[in-house]
Amino acid sequence: MKTNQNVRLSCPIPIQQYPHVLMAHGGGGKLMHQLIEQMFVPTFSNQTLNVRHDAAAIVIHGQNLAFTTDSYVVRPLFFPGGDIGSLAVNGTVNDLAMAGARPLYLSAGFILEEGLPMETLWQVVQSMQSAAQAANVQIVTGDTKVVDRGKGDGIFINTAGIGVIEYPQSIAPQSVQPGDVVLLNGDLGRHGMAIMAIREGLEFETTIASDSAPLAEVVLTLLEAGIELHCLRDLTRGGLASALNEIAEAAGVEIAIAEAQIPVHEEVQGACEILGFDPLYVANEGRFVAFVPEKDAKRALAIMRSHASVKATSDQPTNHPCAIGTVTGKAPGIVKMKSKIGAQRIVDMLSGEQLPRIC
Amino acid sequence: MKTNQNVRLSCPIPIQQYPHVLMAHGGGGKLMHQLIEQMFVPTFSNQTLNVRHDAAAIVIHGQNLAFTTDSYVVRPLFFPGGDIGSLAVNGTVNDLAMAGARPLYLSAGFILEEGLPMETLWQVVQSMQSAAQAANVQIVTGDTKVVDRGKGDGIFINTAGIGVIEYPQSIAPQSVQPGDVVLLNGDLGRHGMAIMAIREGLEFETTIASDSAPLAEVVLTLLEAGIELHCLRDLTRGGLASALNEIAEAAGVEIAIAEAQIPVHEEVQGACEILGFDPLYVANEGRFVAFVPEKDAKRALAIMRSHASVKATSDQPTNHPCAIGTVTGKAPGIVKMKSKIGAQRIVDMLSGEQLPRIC
Repeated sequence: MKTNQNVRLSCPIPIQQYPHVLMAHGGGGKLMHQLIEQMFVPTFSNQTLNVRHDAAAIVIHGQNLAFTTDSYVVRPLFFPGGDIGSLAVNGTVNDLAMAGARPLYLSAGFILEEGLPMETLWQVVQSMQSAAQAANVQIVTGDTKVVDRGKGDGIFINTAGIGVIEYPQSIAPQSVQPGDVVLLNGDLGRHGMAIMAIREGLEFETTIASDSAPLAEVVLTLLEAGIELHCLRDLTRGGLASALNEIAEAAGVEIAIAEAQIPVHEEVQGACEILGFDPLYVANEGRFVAFVPEKDAKRALAIMRSHASVKATSDQPTNHPCAIGTVTGKAPGIVKMKSKIGAQRIVDMLSGEQLPRIC
Repeated sequence: MKTNQNVRLSCPIPIQQYPHVLMAHGGGGKLMHQLIEQMFVPTFSNQTLNVRHDAAAIVIHGQNLAFTTDSYVVRPLFFPGGDIGSLAVNGTVNDLAMAGARPLYLSAGFILEEGLPMETLWQVVQSMQSAAQAANVQIVTGDTKVVDRGKGDGIFINTAGIGVIEYPQSIAPQSVQPGDVVLLNGDLGRHGMAIMAIREGLEFETTIASDSAPLAEVVLTLLEAGIELHCLRDLTRGGLASALNEIAEAAGVEIAIAEAQIPVHEEVQGACEILGFDPLYVANEGRFVAFVPEKDAKRALAIMRSHASVKATSDQPTNHPCAIGTVTGKAPGIVKMKSKIGAQRIVDMLSGEQLPRIC
């Protein structure tokens, strides 16, 4: 049905191949990438959007701001280490942080399914507020919609966020340079495996908890210390592998990482092996990579290690920030990994996400 | 399931009475009002949120900004006069305009149901961009989630918006004064009745089209002309009756309106009569009320009448901006209406919305 007489363009996604939206179109992999690059970005085209960052850098009357949005559809609503409410705050706070911004204000848009227990909504709302206080942001505007039973799934939450960019650094894939060191702030795979364990009713010896956490404080500490941050990216849908591939492609570089340097907790590793997942592709909600010049790498790492939110779980030896690789040169977007036994392989982007509705 | 050990507060909504979320909790009436006032506002409590406006007024480094969010869940996705895409742009643009802000940037968060035809998404995306261009805003950041078949309903869209407040007027219910004139920019009920006609498969002699339109230009023209705007409100969920009740309550005033002054197109009136709706409560997407001091009322009305977007449909005689009432004095939130035959009645807020999923 056409509602706009000017609309005569044909769909930029090959309809024969993809006549319908698939779960993978929201999975953080190749299909989502295609949807964004071929439909959304060219249609909404503007200078800000074209930068392709987790948050948009906007300027209003000379003030540099970051603006971002995410919807949260995670199942189940509650999981070890978090729930949809805290995730909705931390996720958006982190997108602002990854743009080097100080998060200030969030909006909250609820889409509730008729029949949702009121008590569930209340718990989620309280969790959002606790997370907002912990991240030092205010929820200043909101909206509530209710959809008929069977047309939603309990609670969906959208949060949009505004932050202020106080440091003039250009933190973006385009700033990544050959020679940059890739730092990772902790071990991989906790969020995805925590969700998976609950969802599948699997019992592991110890419960893996989500790593969901706000990352703005550590990023702002790095900036205050004068660390030259070339690029930051949190490792959500699609995990480390997808984040590095996106950056490598946007920057036009080759990134080489070493498997032996990438921390994965033994319980997460065990769960991944049992279930057939690769921790490189599993979603995290409190992990990020930082691309920094070699001169700043050691100091940046020291700051990341001393940061409180990391310390809080540092009883577990694999949960230490570390350098996992370098940018080895200009190339059309390649990520290589040296395995523990010394073999080298290409780390590609998946078509979709292994775990649907992880965030 | 408790996920936060500090959480011990009991649910502020009476659980015995409302153990589950009802459609009416999203309907713009009393139950939604209760949810906002008793759960959301006290929990997320902060100075900005407490103002209770369609958009939050925030200050970043001395710059006055407006920030707002809305999710759109309208059924059907396409209707005469618009679709979910144009609605998602106009609705959020209008929330910014109602705060007296110049809308600048929007975010777009999509929650897609697996199996949605790709062509449908494409049409909606194009419609969003057309609407964004017409409203002079840019869509600068976005997010896509896909939920399993049967866990969503085609497309839900959240848009958040940022605008800049360039005029120092305090446009808020708190600025409303006894003696203010209430101006309305056009006839009531088109959006709701357009949706209803399609949804119920009803056939009327002529198709009623939604009034969905961006309102920022007319508001900015009023501000540029130096009109003292005390309060603005667009007449979406809950219609004119709910908007006036909310303002009357927040301002602590009595508002008196005259039925004879309120324009309703005869086709809308006819449809309302057949279906048992009251146009006062039916949702609009391009209509707003402005509270202005008497000294500015005539000039404001002239500007509203000369404004292009109103002219475009002024072939229909009922579609003229007009003065519909006045603020008669201080009172604990009362809206009175003098009927066409001279009787006076209280215009109350409904419990819910007559028409679920109207926006």
